[in-house]
Amino acid sequence: MKEISGNTRLFGILADPIHHVKTPQRMNEHFAKIGFDGVCVPFHARPDNLAAVVEGLRRLENLGGVIVTVPHKTAILELADDATPVARKIGAANVLRREADGRLVAHMLDGEGFVRGLRSCGVAPEGKSVYLAGAGGAANAIGFALVQAGVSRLTIANRTPAKAEDLKARILSLHPDAQIAVGNADPSGHDLVVNGTSLGMKEGDPLPLDASRLTPDQLVCEVIMQPKDTALLVAAQARGCKIHYGAPMLACQIELMVETLGVTSAR
Amino acid sequence: MKEISGNTRLFGILADPIHHVKTPQRMNEHFAKIGFDGVCVPFHARPDNLAAVVEGLRRLENLGGVIVTVPHKTAILELADDATPVARKIGAANVLRREADGRLVAHMLDGEGFVRGLRSCGVAPEGKSVYLAGAGGAANAIGFALVQAGVSRLTIANRTPAKAEDLKARILSLHPDAQIAVGNADPSGHDLVVNGTSLGMKEGDPLPLDASRLTPDQLVCEVIMQPKDTALLVAAQARGCKIHYGAPMLACQIELMVETLGVTSAR
Repeated sequence: MKEISGNTRLFGILADPIHHVKTPQRMNEHFAKIGFDGVCVPFHARPDNLAAVVEGLRRLENLGGVIVTVPHKTAILELADDATPVARKIGAANVLRREADGRLVAHMLDGEGFVRGLRSCGVAPEGKSVYLAGAGGAANAIGFALVQAGVSRLTIANRTPAKAEDLKARILSLHPDAQIAVGNADPSGHDLVVNGTSLGMKEGDPLPLDASRLTPDQLVCEVIMQPKDTALLVAAQARGCKIHYGAPMLACQIELMVETLGVTSAR
Repeated sequence: MKEISGNTRLFGILADPIHHVKTPQRMNEHFAKIGFDGVCVPFHARPDNLAAVVEGLRRLENLGGVIVTVPHKTAILELADDATPVARKIGAANVLRREADGRLVAHMLDGEGFVRGLRSCGVAPEGKSVYLAGAGGAANAIGFALVQAGVSRLTIANRTPAKAEDLKARILSLHPDAQIAVGNADPSGHDLVVNGTSLGMKEGDPLPLDASRLTPDQLVCEVIMQPKDTALLVAAQARGCKIHYGAPMLACQIELMVETLGVTSAR
């Protein structure tokens, strides 16, 4: 890591708890790689204190922005001065960019990270039909990003169908011509099958979809990183499907975050 | 430097401008030396924004404290929840320690840094008579610290004698038995002669005292670091005096700061 001086641009990650965060490590590694004089540090803010912390950070002239994670992704939106249309429609953000005039603009990059992760593994989502399990935080971000990327159609399946209908309506409000349906547990008939739920993180979780309906022509994708081989991915491989791990989504997020924060290579 | 993680304790320096600060470099070097998992970063806050910045920093659970420098040393006192008696009497602080409950306590270490710098060069101030030129920020801190360290008597000389009288009265209010006088430009008859003014930083500055009255038994001390050899030190050496440079004061401040901020060696 470069020596920190009075010229070093400051970045941080807002989280509670803070100990487990990996963004400082990854972002500082990235800064070093591109020769950028910046540093990313942990900012441990409890929910009650988030507003005051953000008001203080906004006034640090050398702050480039902050990454926002659990449990602040929803609350941060109201504290920002502006937000991208997608962040607004999702109702959550994971990056707060500080403009030169001190304005804080909220961005949601989770979904773009997933799409870029697909591309980094040679999968172009354009024209593909996609089955998406879930309608929570991750599924929201991924749903918007997949439609934005140009999939041919998107089927959203959720235990509570009303939440899937709601997500569908919000995506349509930004992309009126998109082909979106609310589905059931059966993922057959789609090129890509994406788990956007947290089912699979804990041992004994039920599968997020009916794996017996998977077909060998499908690519089955995870957002879960731990465990690497979720029960869904194991079942998908047993059915002859190709699989896509959760890790590339995070790796690509760091790139997207530094781009969004206006960091450019010094080399 | 150690890798920054979610466990890394956060420290900073509040300044405006920020580019010239050297505290992050020195403090991070010190952390590395003692194996402490901490990082010191620049916090660039303009005077108008200081209150909001401090309110935000106060709520960062992983913040250990901040170093405070120009132009915030006086204003910070009103934003702190508490202050040491010396910081209160001086009306300025350069360290804000964040207690576990979020309370911010202001400390003034400039004077102790000077005294520790003397000791690090083998000079014990106990029982010595001291002539101090100046009654501004640096002279205030040094005056209090020298009396606290147990000098036999202190003579304060200032272009505006009322400011010297005021400093004398404030030191006496904390140390009623101290021997303190207000002097003139003549430093003779003292063991230590200390320049606590900024005269000597710029070429062509007048000397802060009448150097023709210096005697070879005296030790002449600077607080100025740039230039290293001030006109006063050059004149003092020409009169056969021993000299004490400005640099040890800063070097010892870093030690004092990390001690005050509760940083302890991991080794």
